Amino acid sequence: MSSDAISIAIDCMGGDFGPSVTVPAALAFLRAHDAAQVVLVGQSDLLAPLLARHPDLAQRARVLHADEVVAMDESPTLALKNRKKSSMRLALNLVKEGAAQASVSAGNTGALMAMSRFVLKMLPEIDRPALCPVMPTMNGHVYMLDLGANVDCTAEHLLQFGIMGAMLAAALDHKAAPSVGLLNIGSEDIKGNEVVKQAGELLKNSGLNFIGNIEGDGIYKGEADVVVCDGFVGNVALKVSEGLAQMLAQSLKQEFSRNLLTRLAALAALPVLKHFKTRFDHRRYNGASLLGLRGVSIKSHGSADAFAFEQAIVRAYEAANNHVVERISACLANLRQRQGITPATGGENA
Amino acid sequence: MSSDAISIAIDCMGGDFGPSVTVPAALAFLRAHDAAQVVLVGQSDLLAPLLARHPDLAQRARVLHADEVVAMDESPTLALKNRKKSSMRLALNLVKEGAAQASVSAGNTGALMAMSRFVLKMLPEIDRPALCPVMPTMNGHVYMLDLGANVDCTAEHLLQFGIMGAMLAAALDHKAAPSVGLLNIGSEDIKGNEVVKQAGELLKNSGLNFIGNIEGDGIYKGEADVVVCDGFVGNVALKVSEGLAQMLAQSLKQEFSRNLLTRLAALAALPVLKHFKTRFDHRRYNGASLLGLRGVSIKSHGSADAFAFEQAIVRAYEAANNHVVERISACLANLRQRQGITPATGGENA
Repeated sequence: MSSDAISIAIDCMGGDFGPSVTVPAALAFLRAHDAAQVVLVGQSDLLAPLLARHPDLAQRARVLHADEVVAMDESPTLALKNRKKSSMRLALNLVKEGAAQASVSAGNTGALMAMSRFVLKMLPEIDRPALCPVMPTMNGHVYMLDLGANVDCTAEHLLQFGIMGAMLAAALDHKAAPSVGLLNIGSEDIKGNEVVKQAGELLKNSGLNFIGNIEGDGIYKGEADVVVCDGFVGNVALKVSEGLAQMLAQSLKQEFSRNLLTRLAALAALPVLKHFKTRFDHRRYNGASLLGLRGVSIKSHGSADAFAFEQAIVRAYEAANNHVVERISACLANLRQRQGITPATGGENA
Repeated sequence: MSSDAISIAIDCMGGDFGPSVTVPAALAFLRAHDAAQVVLVGQSDLLAPLLARHPDLAQRARVLHADEVVAMDESPTLALKNRKKSSMRLALNLVKEGAAQASVSAGNTGALMAMSRFVLKMLPEIDRPALCPVMPTMNGHVYMLDLGANVDCTAEHLLQFGIMGAMLAAALDHKAAPSVGLLNIGSEDIKGNEVVKQAGELLKNSGLNFIGNIEGDGIYKGEADVVVCDGFVGNVALKVSEGLAQMLAQSLKQEFSRNLLTRLAALAALPVLKHFKTRFDHRRYNGASLLGLRGVSIKSHGSADAFAFEQAIVRAYEAANNHVVERISACLANLRQRQGITPATGGENA
């Protein structure tokens, strides 16, 4: 294996389906990315035979045996304490040691967050990782953070989310100055709660391309490349979206299977409906970034299939290849300098 | 006009379309509700001719002249100070005086909230009105509050929302013990922020049919009759839903108009799609209740058409006819008694 290639450490045992999903995804990823390498972390007696069927990829893939698996319902604290030989932990260790440049896991979210934080460590001034997924919009996609890791946020936290999200968008989408919006409410007399108001002031003076407040519907209208909110609000927004989409999809199905006539109509409409479904296929958006760490750690949905899990690996690869951690570090250092030179309430507005 | 009939005071000048929507809606409402009466409040030279065309309804409808209109973009504070002769204000005055049992307006939300609070007054211990709309779910509908009026909430506020929402559901849907859910997030290691955790404890000891936490997707799954959250989260959830629904509808339209074949498919699917649209027609859910007041005040969407505005009037009628204010009062009094007898941390759990 080449020493300067990007290598992705893959927790092959995590998620609802384990190696039957993670290994095919890793192989598909390798075929599409000539320069990339992977380390398949997990039970070698399961992984090695799957890999052996693809001798053409042997040069760019290896197996690292792990004795243990973090269970999906395991307490993060206990997992951190007891699962030191787990596939999740060993994958993160590889990133820590520099043997891999990013890790991907479909395992237990809380455990992954705790382990990522413990193994990779946080960047200076960042308390805990923010979870940043990518979501479809009318005109592309949006990065939204935090999505559940940080529920009691200060204005300073929201500012950090803005920086981390902007640097992720810059790295993954090659945008020089991604637009950052602050999720707020539009009531005429009360614009947001106190923390959000303060965060708006901080973001104005951050040097980011801050475009001000956006309301909930602005997320899907694609009003900003990055949307900043606290973890409670972000989690509710994401789950509400999932619930609504599910309700609409299920009802549409019901309407089309009402009787013979509607079933014929469904037949006629099928290609269109399929195309529509592909457009918002959540699998394409799989792979949330844990930001604020000194390394790249990507969380895949637990129920991801091979296609979805491959998207998460691609995101890990792009994040590492485009130096997202270094970008965030530099931006935070720049902010410290700005805050040292210009007061937070100063008139300078980039 | 009979003195014991329910009479609804209608701000006929509010909203995007004024009398051209509000008057036909009021007339349709009267035709469907034999025992009801309305007072059409607004410019009499506009309203009287519209009413004169329907002599059969003359016994149950009258016009109350108002010189002024609250503009949609007027500051609530200024509207409260300067628009004492506005249609919005006079409609609320009628409720205050007992000449009407409920009022409906499609005007400026902030102004309506400020005026409702000033004219009707709050119930004891309630600081400001909560805004409670009704939303469709997989198996019916849900009342959600607060939707934007109260952004910095205490646990006590959330408890009050639970009481007010439950009493609204009881009044409008004739349910003896509507289920109340607390909107929360499901992250494995951190269940909600501090205020929500405390609110959960208070709701457990409230005597309400509290079913515990529900996540964002549970709203549309119909997991609870009433969903409680602070105004910031509620507003975001509502707007996110609007944005997502809009994006999906627009994309579906785009897919069906892609080429001749897809247009033919659209033709075949049209009846099904229409039926689907009717099922979630937001017009059917028009009419948010301002709760916590000593009278019934209903807010219609500003862009409501006659059908939608009529639904808001119906909701006002049902709320008044089923004594929602008295129910809330009684429930709050009951709570005070419970809190006097059992400590908030007591083991009693209804």
